[in-house]
Amino acid sequence: MPFSYPIDVRFSDLDALGHVNHAVIISYLEHARHHWWQGLIKGKPFEEEGYLIARVEVDYRESILINDKVIVTLRCESIGTSSFTLAFQVRDELRDVVFAEARIVQVMLDFKTQRSRPIGDETLTWLRSQL
Amino acid sequence: MPFSYPIDVRFSDLDALGHVNHAVIISYLEHARHHWWQGLIKGKPFEEEGYLIARVEVDYRESILINDKVIVTLRCESIGTSSFTLAFQVRDELRDVVFAEARIVQVMLDFKTQRSRPIGDETLTWLRSQL
Amino acid sequence: MPFSYPIDVRFSDLDALGHVNHAVIISYLEHARHHWWQGLIKGKPFEEEGYLIARVEVDYRESILINDKVIVTLRCESIGTSSFTLAFQVRDELRDVVFAEARIVQVMLDFKTQRSRPIGDETLTWLRSQL
Amino acid sequence: MPFSYPIDVRFSDLDALGHVNHAVIISYLEHARHHWWQGLIKGKPFEEEGYLIARVEVDYRESILINDKVIVTLRCESIGTSSFTLAFQVRDELRDVVFAEARIVQVMLDFKTQRSRPIGDETLTWLRSQL
Repeated sequence: MPFSYPIDVRFSDLDALGHVNHAVIISYLEHARHHWWQGLIKGKPFEEEGYLIARVEVDYRESILINDKVIVTLRCESIGTSSFTLAFQVRDELRDVVFAEARIVQVMLDFKTQRSRPIGDETLTWLRSQL
Repeated sequence: MPFSYPIDVRFSDLDALGHVNHAVIISYLEHARHHWWQGLIKGKPFEEEGYLIARVEVDYRESILINDKVIVTLRCESIGTSSFTLAFQVRDELRDVVFAEARIVQVMLDFKTQRSRPIGDETLTWLRSQL
Repeated sequence: MPFSYPIDVRFSDLDALGHVNHAVIISYLEHARHHWWQGLIKGKPFEEEGYLIARVEVDYRESILINDKVIVTLRCESIGTSSFTLAFQVRDELRDVVFAEARIVQVMLDFKTQRSRPIGDETLTWLRSQL
Repeated sequence: MPFSYPIDVRFSDLDALGHVNHAVIISYLEHARHHWWQGLIKGKPFEEEGYLIARVEVDYRESILINDKVIVTLRCESIGTSSFTLAFQVRDELRDVVFAEARIVQVMLDFKTQRSRPIGDETLTWLRSQL
């Protein structure tokens, strides 16, 4: 079940080449994921049910310019014991253009011990509903 | 032949979890690559001999904290017709810790037409010396 | 005549203290000003009719948190020969809270010579309509 | 007693106009202040002896470009009951150029109550040594 979130491109997202910097696009993914995750944690502190980023893969297809209407779509692609993988697409809302595609691995973290931990039951159920 | 560049971690690189944000680490790679590329272009405008980022892969191993002494090492891993791949390691300068490893594909760009173009002879010779 | 623009607070706007970093709030002002200025230049390149920032003053009243609904309001406060001053307010859209107030001086720039220049007639007329 | 800290300008500090963005320069001030404050807290958590930013004033004199050698100098200008004011200069290390000057008011914060609090004795003594 895909989740979509629009991005309001800022002037400060641009780099000296005049397009949105490739690292900033990864912050766009983070922004969409933050709002998606609220569907599970509903305002609870992230430290109670949160993750770290273990791996990022991004393919950049087209440059994003300041006036582009950007939308990020994500869906859960696979679920492991302590991690899950999200697939992202960064598209233009109006035109048939894909700016970037990405795959990111999140690992559930016990913030007290700073160690990874298994996905809990409630989160597992929710993640399965997002496949 | 690896190239290394130290990173002066800034407070503004941290996110709300208190460690360097994963997207910012990609800016660290960009920063090191910028200085490495100066070995070729020596202050010439980037638009005369520059590239876009086509693909990024990063594996995050350990969090970077504000007082860590970070160094980025990169080397050219392979050279194609119009692109080249760099392998990065983000390490602690003092301790035996690897924070992240990355592989990034750069595509040579003709900034006038905004299209990819073959790697020129001078750049090819230089890139081969960086393998 | 005030102009308002909503800000979609991002996780990456937060710093290690868990609130929106004070420097990022200045990017919020830039973002609102960028959209306000489009009312004049309507998609024309900024380098044809643009400015540099000469002075920034910000008073920070309340911290902005990730779930706050932020809106920036600006109006033109005064117009000089080659510069104009904007007054900003950063507020909560829902609650009666002012996060920050700011005053910023912009200087018209001739991007070819990189020197300041007088405000042109068309821009002057438009700025007066924004007082 | 002035304190100085060099800034390693990053490509990601530039905006679409090709110079260091004005908001990023405020992060440079933050970076220098972070290291200056270590002279007092010596690695202790910032939340035990920390502050919020109450007011920022910056005058921008010259653009900072990617190859500039930037150094930030700060000194304590005045000390109040619960706040202190720092004066900053952002200069070129090699050339006689001032990029920006700033004055920033910090307010001591009790991070548990999120309210301002008087400057403690040890911090007061240290701040006086920085006048």
